[in-house]
Amino acid sequence: MNVVDKLPSLQVMLKHLQKVPYLSSKNMYRVATHFLHMDRSQLEYFCQALLHAHDRLVPCPTCCAWQEKDAPCQFCQSAKRDQKTVCVVESWQDLLAIEKSGAFSGVYHVLGGVICPLDGIGPEHLSIEQLVKRASTIDEVIFATNQTPEGEATAAYIAHCLQQVPVRITCLACGVPVGSALEFLDRITVYKALAQRKEF
Amino acid sequence: MNVVDKLPSLQVMLKHLQKVPYLSSKNMYRVATHFLHMDRSQLEYFCQALLHAHDRLVPCPTCCAWQEKDAPCQFCQSAKRDQKTVCVVESWQDLLAIEKSGAFSGVYHVLGGVICPLDGIGPEHLSIEQLVKRASTIDEVIFATNQTPEGEATAAYIAHCLQQVPVRITCLACGVPVGSALEFLDRITVYKALAQRKEF
Repeated sequence: MNVVDKLPSLQVMLKHLQKVPYLSSKNMYRVATHFLHMDRSQLEYFCQALLHAHDRLVPCPTCCAWQEKDAPCQFCQSAKRDQKTVCVVESWQDLLAIEKSGAFSGVYHVLGGVICPLDGIGPEHLSIEQLVKRASTIDEVIFATNQTPEGEATAAYIAHCLQQVPVRITCLACGVPVGSALEFLDRITVYKALAQRKEF
Repeated sequence: MNVVDKLPSLQVMLKHLQKVPYLSSKNMYRVATHFLHMDRSQLEYFCQALLHAHDRLVPCPTCCAWQEKDAPCQFCQSAKRDQKTVCVVESWQDLLAIEKSGAFSGVYHVLGGVICPLDGIGPEHLSIEQLVKRASTIDEVIFATNQTPEGEATAAYIAHCLQQVPVRITCLACGVPVGSALEFLDRITVYKALAQRKEF
């Protein structure tokens, strides 16, 4: 009989921690120990913070980025941002990455994932319909889905959906990442960087 | 201004998640998104499980391994285990590793860390005093602290504390790990494996 089997309350906690993504099974035990060693009041604050955030944060009905309930969306309702240029990203984390670059002052559209039939995720599970609805008021749609087969397929699918809408469609440049050595790059990246070379 | 700055409830949640060990900052955002996408009831169960485990699990007063409150310790109170042989480990996770090996049927002593002056952890922060108290009723103490400078120093310190007690002190064998290739091993491991070679 396993050590953990004799500690039912620990077992229940581990079962819940198992569902948290990006926690390897080894780290899970360490995180469990961390929670057990915390002050009870600190652990209560932790739980309250999770539940409060869950209650307060909702996806913006237009762009699907997180916004505080009853507060204006910091993108869609901002006069400082170009409302005619929409950057399409897979997730809110990708939105953060674009925002950090400082190169974009338009608005976003968070898809909430990519089309992936193997995982049972079809276009109806993503916010593609909302994007098509918005598209008539937009000048340019920038695809910033990830450079994966699923990301590119999703971009292709959306481009198809937008066929009838008079909107400019662009995508991120593909090439050599800054700070990288050519010898360690995969051949497809080098191929694309060469094929899409530009004037120096 | 940062995107997250405009989402105060998210900011509070992230501040709490930051304190969870083994969550890199990139993964932290993904875990936050995971919690936001969960059903409210599921998130409540998660929090309840953490708090319940925190309330129910206490360190055994003898060996410092986790035990359910009011339940007998599965090691110290077990008639099936050799109460005269004590394996000294740094953490509860190390106890699990020894237990999984199936090679040990004695009892444990969980130190709760290692001596590390740089981190401000002295012998008084560990359960060394309890071990010394137990030692008079023990035949053998097996050191299973990690093969790190801190782990070995802690073992040496405990050995010093046990000097006056007539107890056999042993430590885990050090050598080539199973499944490893010699060419990729560090030289100290190879040195120790050679120095401590045994009859085939």
